[in-house]
Amino acid sequence: MRDYNYRITIQYDGSRYRGWQLQNNVDDTIQGKLEKILERMYGYHIDIIGSGRTDAGVHALGQVANFHLKLQEDEEKLFARINEYLPEDISVTNVMQMNPRFHARFSAISKTYRYRIYYGICANVFERKYQYYYKGNKLDINKMKTAAKHLIGEHDFMSFCGNKHMKKSTVRTIFEINIKDDNDEVVIDYTGDGFLQNMVRILTGTLIDIGTGKIAEDEIISILNSRNRENAGFTAPSKGLTLVSVKYK
Amino acid sequence: MRDYNYRITIQYDGSRYRGWQLQNNVDDTIQGKLEKILERMYGYHIDIIGSGRTDAGVHALGQVANFHLKLQEDEEKLFARINEYLPEDISVTNVMQMNPRFHARFSAISKTYRYRIYYGICANVFERKYQYYYKGNKLDINKMKTAAKHLIGEHDFMSFCGNKHMKKSTVRTIFEINIKDDNDEVVIDYTGDGFLQNMVRILTGTLIDIGTGKIAEDEIISILNSRNRENAGFTAPSKGLTLVSVKYK
Repeated sequence: MRDYNYRITIQYDGSRYRGWQLQNNVDDTIQGKLEKILERMYGYHIDIIGSGRTDAGVHALGQVANFHLKLQEDEEKLFARINEYLPEDISVTNVMQMNPRFHARFSAISKTYRYRIYYGICANVFERKYQYYYKGNKLDINKMKTAAKHLIGEHDFMSFCGNKHMKKSTVRTIFEINIKDDNDEVVIDYTGDGFLQNMVRILTGTLIDIGTGKIAEDEIISILNSRNRENAGFTAPSKGLTLVSVKYK
Repeated sequence: MRDYNYRITIQYDGSRYRGWQLQNNVDDTIQGKLEKILERMYGYHIDIIGSGRTDAGVHALGQVANFHLKLQEDEEKLFARINEYLPEDISVTNVMQMNPRFHARFSAISKTYRYRIYYGICANVFERKYQYYYKGNKLDINKMKTAAKHLIGEHDFMSFCGNKHMKKSTVRTIFEINIKDDNDEVVIDYTGDGFLQNMVRILTGTLIDIGTGKIAEDEIISILNSRNRENAGFTAPSKGLTLVSVKYK
């Protein structure tokens, strides 16, 4: 039977959710919320395929997902109706009908995550849910940039994987890490073909430890080679992390 | 008896407060929160004088207040301690000892308020508490700018006053109104010697009605001259409003 494949781009404030992936309570997760709404709209259960999970408390500017409908639907109508049902902390910013083979996870070629660290002398109340407040600690971003260069390329990122029992490959490719320092805020953008569980947060914790001098910038090489989570830095809190975009061919 | 006069600059997310001014429950207002903390720090009640009230739900980037202490206190110590006690939606960004005559309200020479209107096709989830979402309605900012010019200068702003039983003078001077349109957002900055109750929100509602064509741009003159609230536009919601700064000599 023919069906119709739709791709949606989703923006969310992850503060009150247990992450992207559906768990027991549908209202706790972004995927759960979206599936519940689609079921309400169409009268049958529709599986939503995300580009990947985001952890509890992580935000998204451009998460991507797809799902199949039995009947063809007007893109603009779908866009308007789904946004009508969504709570104010989730928004669908784009809807597009795709060819039947498009798959939000398997078709993705790269993802960009952003981590925001604020080090001003007092917290920024308006950004408090989207920044990690690293109180009054100036970071040496030149050291962080030097260390980040060693992470570019294909590596086994086992040392930066939050799942100790990971059985699949921990090899990933990082295409780019961009570090900026502006207005008492350090912003790190990571682009890669995929990221392991907590990987961006552990990379960030390690780069912060390098920025404060706790870890020397060249030590990143031995941390990477050790394939041991114990050697890397702390896991930076989820609230500073945002999935910015997912790229497709 | 000599005492010591301190000026503080305060940033707050007004979402969960009933405004600046102390009411019965101290935890409901910004002034109440601050007075409670100072009493806890110094062991006696300290009155805080704000530059002016902000309504329930209105935010501040740079509200200013002052208070007197019986003993001299180190500015940096006061700054650190007060921030330690404050909840995450209030922050003191500056503390400065002033001469004894400084008064946050009477010494102020101008105030700047910002109103943010978002008209994109779907709400911006990250700014949802700080923007008025005027869904999908494109505003003609040239018309708004033309109308705004008629508001500059000293006028009786009775038509834009939310308090029907205002007994004091409703004459105020607006020095500048700056309107920008960027990324589906219209931002209006108002600078004046003072503003009446709800004045910025009613001015904004009227400018929005002008931007959509509901009110002609030149009608602003007759609205102003009528000295009748009924003739002006709607009161724009409080969440789009932020007190940006207060200037002193």
